[in-house]
Amino acid sequence: MPSSDSSSKLPRVFIDEVAPSVDGGRHAVKRCLGDALVVGADIYKDGHDLIGARVRFRPPGERDWQTAAMSYDFDFDRWSGSVPLDLLGRWEIAVEAWPDYFATWRTDLGKRLQAAQDVGAELLEGAALLRRARPGGAARKRLTEIAHLLADGARSQEERCVAALDPELAALMDGPLAPAHVTRSAPSLPVLVERERARLGAWYELFPRSQAPLGGRPRHGTFADAERRLPELAMLGFDVIYLPPVHPIGRSHRKGPNNSRTSSAGDPGSPWAIGAREGGHTAVHPELGTIDDFDRLVRAAAAHGIEVALDYALQCSPDHPWATEHPEWFHRRPDGSIRYAENPPKKYEDIYPINFWCEKESDRVALWEACRDIFLFWIEHGVRIFRVDNPHTKPFAFWEWCLRDVQERHPDVVFLSEAFTRPKRMLGLAKIGFSQSYTYFTWKNTSWELRDFLRMLLEPEWLECYRPNFFANTPDILHEYLQKGGRPAFRTRLLLAATLSPSYGIYSGFELCENVPLHEGSEEYLDSEKYQLRPRHWDAQDNIKPDIAQLNHLRRHHPALQRFDNLRILDCENPNIFWYRKKAGAEDLFIAVNLDPYAAQEAMVPVPIDELGLDADAPYRMRDLLTDTSYQWRGPRGYVRLDPRERAGHLFRFEAGGST
Amino acid sequence: MPSSDSSSKLPRVFIDEVAPSVDGGRHAVKRCLGDALVVGADIYKDGHDLIGARVRFRPPGERDWQTAAMSYDFDFDRWSGSVPLDLLGRWEIAVEAWPDYFATWRTDLGKRLQAAQDVGAELLEGAALLRRARPGGAARKRLTEIAHLLADGARSQEERCVAALDPELAALMDGPLAPAHVTRSAPSLPVLVERERARLGAWYELFPRSQAPLGGRPRHGTFADAERRLPELAMLGFDVIYLPPVHPIGRSHRKGPNNSRTSSAGDPGSPWAIGAREGGHTAVHPELGTIDDFDRLVRAAAAHGIEVALDYALQCSPDHPWATEHPEWFHRRPDGSIRYAENPPKKYEDIYPINFWCEKESDRVALWEACRDIFLFWIEHGVRIFRVDNPHTKPFAFWEWCLRDVQERHPDVVFLSEAFTRPKRMLGLAKIGFSQSYTYFTWKNTSWELRDFLRMLLEPEWLECYRPNFFANTPDILHEYLQKGGRPAFRTRLLLAATLSPSYGIYSGFELCENVPLHEGSEEYLDSEKYQLRPRHWDAQDNIKPDIAQLNHLRRHHPALQRFDNLRILDCENPNIFWYRKKAGAEDLFIAVNLDPYAAQEAMVPVPIDELGLDADAPYRMRDLLTDTSYQWRGPRGYVRLDPRERAGHLFRFEAGGST
Repeated sequence: MPSSDSSSKLPRVFIDEVAPSVDGGRHAVKRCLGDALVVGADIYKDGHDLIGARVRFRPPGERDWQTAAMSYDFDFDRWSGSVPLDLLGRWEIAVEAWPDYFATWRTDLGKRLQAAQDVGAELLEGAALLRRARPGGAARKRLTEIAHLLADGARSQEERCVAALDPELAALMDGPLAPAHVTRSAPSLPVLVERERARLGAWYELFPRSQAPLGGRPRHGTFADAERRLPELAMLGFDVIYLPPVHPIGRSHRKGPNNSRTSSAGDPGSPWAIGAREGGHTAVHPELGTIDDFDRLVRAAAAHGIEVALDYALQCSPDHPWATEHPEWFHRRPDGSIRYAENPPKKYEDIYPINFWCEKESDRVALWEACRDIFLFWIEHGVRIFRVDNPHTKPFAFWEWCLRDVQERHPDVVFLSEAFTRPKRMLGLAKIGFSQSYTYFTWKNTSWELRDFLRMLLEPEWLECYRPNFFANTPDILHEYLQKGGRPAFRTRLLLAATLSPSYGIYSGFELCENVPLHEGSEEYLDSEKYQLRPRHWDAQDNIKPDIAQLNHLRRHHPALQRFDNLRILDCENPNIFWYRKKAGAEDLFIAVNLDPYAAQEAMVPVPIDELGLDADAPYRMRDLLTDTSYQWRGPRGYVRLDPRERAGHLFRFEAGGST
Repeated sequence: MPSSDSSSKLPRVFIDEVAPSVDGGRHAVKRCLGDALVVGADIYKDGHDLIGARVRFRPPGERDWQTAAMSYDFDFDRWSGSVPLDLLGRWEIAVEAWPDYFATWRTDLGKRLQAAQDVGAELLEGAALLRRARPGGAARKRLTEIAHLLADGARSQEERCVAALDPELAALMDGPLAPAHVTRSAPSLPVLVERERARLGAWYELFPRSQAPLGGRPRHGTFADAERRLPELAMLGFDVIYLPPVHPIGRSHRKGPNNSRTSSAGDPGSPWAIGAREGGHTAVHPELGTIDDFDRLVRAAAAHGIEVALDYALQCSPDHPWATEHPEWFHRRPDGSIRYAENPPKKYEDIYPINFWCEKESDRVALWEACRDIFLFWIEHGVRIFRVDNPHTKPFAFWEWCLRDVQERHPDVVFLSEAFTRPKRMLGLAKIGFSQSYTYFTWKNTSWELRDFLRMLLEPEWLECYRPNFFANTPDILHEYLQKGGRPAFRTRLLLAATLSPSYGIYSGFELCENVPLHEGSEEYLDSEKYQLRPRHWDAQDNIKPDIAQLNHLRRHHPALQRFDNLRILDCENPNIFWYRKKAGAEDLFIAVNLDPYAAQEAMVPVPIDELGLDADAPYRMRDLLTDTSYQWRGPRGYVRLDPRERAGHLFRFEAGGST
């Protein structure tokens, strides 16, 4: 039964499908600083009353809600409004709407006047509406005056109607007449605003220990050696250099070259076996230098416009100080010993996984805080980007708490999830707070694979929270396509990575087309840098550094390459040519990539001339930004021919008009 | 900071995308009694622990939650479970999941044994797991025994492993080890379970006042006259007869024939101008008979397996008793008079719209209850189906409260929304509780129109709560397609309505192919029954009653015609032929309808032989259930030719195998 008390809960307007949202507000939508957030909602009510609506939003750290106007376009019931996101952190958004009784009355009055009807009664009703409004101060006084005028039978209807239809009055009467008329969408939806680097950047992974110059006596590379590579990396246009763990490396069960279970005295071990007597996650490996050397590397990189991203790998070697100081943070066997990593029946004796749930709640709290403090330590040392190792093997609840806690203190910190797992877990990590993520890109080499994979990433559920970082290789993944396709394959994959995704990366050696696997059928590198030093001749013949430099340059100057949501995959009859479009503002790029590293491929590729506003026979130009060559095309199909000995693809900019 | 108190809120398992839901649980999903509700969810966690999950559900009126098993199929992270819906009313569903530590341990133990590893420590860990479980009674005792056995170093590992892997133990250990391990999806999602008639039925609209037999002296028809038509309507296979309002008709501003603003003494007026000195919404129009006559009609219909649906039109003629007894329930003008209906500048002086918000809250409560009580009155008189007139002109909040209140008392009541308005308002009415709805079907006559319209209805958002009722005509809508296409057009529209949608209807006269409009360009009937008596010769030449009887018969015996969600629209190169499929269980129907009422059309229609499990050259048969003729086809295309002088279409049942 409708009680008197419930009346204010009876909505006069209904609000559905508020967007953007992830899982109905359980998780945050992601945006970058400076973006305009477009908020949409289905808003409807009975009858023919006009509706008023606005976005409610609360910037991070603010107590009060602000509002932004909403309006509808061609669809009467779909409203939208825009919120400028000018602060890093977690915003909240909602929508409120109400029946706009005054605007309805005003519109109806106009129609009656057009039909030359008597509006005496309507003017009295209008006066009553004005008296019901409850603005403060001068507006109140002004409304009373106008209400008096509207109701004044001594004046002409014409004079009273002029006052009724005056825009000044419409402005005074803007908004709901009474709080009970307002419907607010619930729950409010979170929006996480991060800096642009969360979406956009060219990454380069390097092992500092391999950066000692060739030619001299072979030795362990250092932070200082890495520093010396900065000018080159800056010239190549990289935004981020990512360093595998720089911490002391365990000695117990240290792995030898090519992941052998035994090591010799000189073997450096895997940087991911973290912790030794020299310290754990907040120490640096002595052979790399000191913490001061590290700080200098970070500063020098910054001077080149490059950020240092650090690996964050929550696991310990048996020699990690935590193993003795905090055995309660590990899984223990019935005999009290710490359990090494296993994936039965496989055993990994060089690694102790952490038991994030502990047995005692107080231990859990201390452990989680210690893990959080590792982030805070490196943030103090200038690091603002972390590549998080295997996050899908640690509790999602931990990440949800920890990433948020860190970002509340340092909202400019960016987290890259290094998860290679099933799609819903990848997406889950994005939902609970990772800024960006590794992807399946390395395994998507045919046009069908690429198409299906990219379409998944473009689905709204993914697009709103999952930002891809297309690494073309990693120390663990050397795809058969690169192994067999050689230099043309490297150029193709580079072109795809750098133009499909605003964030992409290569692991060093890629620029030299290193492609020797551990053995036939393996995706591991032979003599992997994970287990040994790999100094390189960085200017070796046939390197593809010119491609890298050019693409990174183009990425910086073409906004269409700086977004992912603008990607449209176009059909191409020849499956060896991948054909796609990226549009931003007035710039419209069309990209053709030859996926066949062995042979020239040609195709008639479709051009959506309707969308481009072209007549069926109008000429237009496609300018290849890679060669600065211009092609004149006409009609809905254009011809491309790509020879892998010459080029991997075309990066066309569409230009209307056919003359040169 | 993670406090001790928060630990139970830290989820060990994540649950997303629980389905089915409408607007995240704000509105109910709809199902029918006897349906099995399939509940799905994305469930994932870190690491390689196995997961346990189940559906939680609460049937209407129950305090306690019950559970149903969930499992995953090919996608590890998408789980589903089934809930048998065996009670009418509002159910609640949710999903709960937990890490299945025992099953993980058991699976790992098996792998270790296969690798011939020593499992002494694992058996001790298993014993510890068993001791942590907290079942009651005998299970507790049995677990203690088994734990003792597993930990008993005096026994052989083989004996202990047999006990560890015993299915009895797995059954005892089924479920979460501790409440803190369990994640529950929130909020719980409502499911409204209605009887099958909410989804499925053939409707016939008739005006009792036009049912007086032809031949005698012309007179006003009565409930008794309508009763005499029941045997014929039962033979035609109708499930529901829907009566326009049967209440006293107002005299003030009564409309004359063809909606003229003046009437003569003998004009019966519009039944939608409800209320006169004889009473309002709970009275019957004296010329139709008494309330006892009405009751007898309802009983007689029931004896023929037919239900009577009543119009529910919340508006009043100026002569309605409420206008004098409750002026506070109407909009009043500044001079105190009641405001008639307007859509400025148009005026409708024969109708007083109700002011559902009133000025005083107590008046609003009394009004809403009075409106609710109209339903309750007619329910007392045996009516269980209401066709609600223009619900989109009354507050959605009113319907949300009222329909739910009525269904909580009488969960077998079905509400049909007669809204012809913008899509989101149509959908909104379905969301807030209408069992089924009128649609745009009458205006969708080309294959493109039908395709786009049907695709919208098949979108999940619509499918979960909006049940279409395809009326082929109404007293207000005589589409140009019928006006111009004549008898073949009527047969085509009947075949479409009856086979596309489980609920469909015709307004009387359709079976006689009545198609004279008020004037060229109008969708109104000439001499519309809304304003005058229209007795008819029900066996007039060229009637399409045989088509109706056959289709209604087929609808009752073919489950594939009793659902909407199984509709698949197939491509057809000839846009004059509409080609679609409906599959249910082993039955697979393919339907071809000629949309051209003027000429024969032919096409090679596609057959999805892959989905049908056919080899490329395997023969199969298409049996036309309308003619009981069988066609042998082969391969992915079949030939159809439809001559409107002979038939409107084929209703094929697919039959594997080519022999006769």
